Amino acid sequence: MISPKYHVFVCTSCRTNGTQKGFCYSKGSVNLIDRFMEEIEDRDLSSKVMITNTGCFGICDKGPIVVIYPEGVWYGNITEDDVARIVEEHLEGGVVVEDLRI
Amino acid sequence: MISPKYHVFVCTSCRTNGTQKGFCYSKGSVNLIDRFMEEIEDRDLSSKVMITNTGCFGICDKGPIVVIYPEGVWYGNITEDDVARIVEEHLEGGVVVEDLRI
Repeated sequence: MISPKYHVFVCTSCRTNGTQKGFCYSKGSVNLIDRFMEEIEDRDLSSKVMITNTGCFGICDKGPIVVIYPEGVWYGNITEDDVARIVEEHLEGGVVVEDLRI
Repeated sequence: MISPKYHVFVCTSCRTNGTQKGFCYSKGSVNLIDRFMEEIEDRDLSSKVMITNTGCFGICDKGPIVVIYPEGVWYGNITEDDVARIVEEHLEGGVVVEDLRI
């Protein structure tokens, strides 16, 4: 899929030297990706939402970080419980989850 | 920096299991990130452009892949020589490099 309606980037602290090590990773961000994928499948949003893992966004103290384009919305301190809200309210409903925004 | 004017995502084939292995990586995409950083610094664009490495975008046969938001432009088969054009024409000049687009 090229040009999804929403492109969700989740920091998993992967570095270009091949190691995966850092704050977002240590706070369970790989599990966030699994949760996003489950929610997206459950809500039948697979055709319009893409999930991509990333390296560091540079604001580790607010991690785990999730960035959604094309709006360019940055979410911080994201937990597995927050994922369902982001998918339901933002990706399905089109409304940014303001209290999770940084 | 949150909310850069341009956010450049470069696939370096990092996987959530901690390995970095795949087509974009094997075709030198880590060097592309270094080239982007050099060009951005040389052109004094650091305050408005962010570069982030990513995992797979799912279209490996067109790699190395570079995706730029907020426009959602996908570039494929990118070489180090292409980086200067993308920075000059797209990130500095605001014009998408159509012949590199996929």
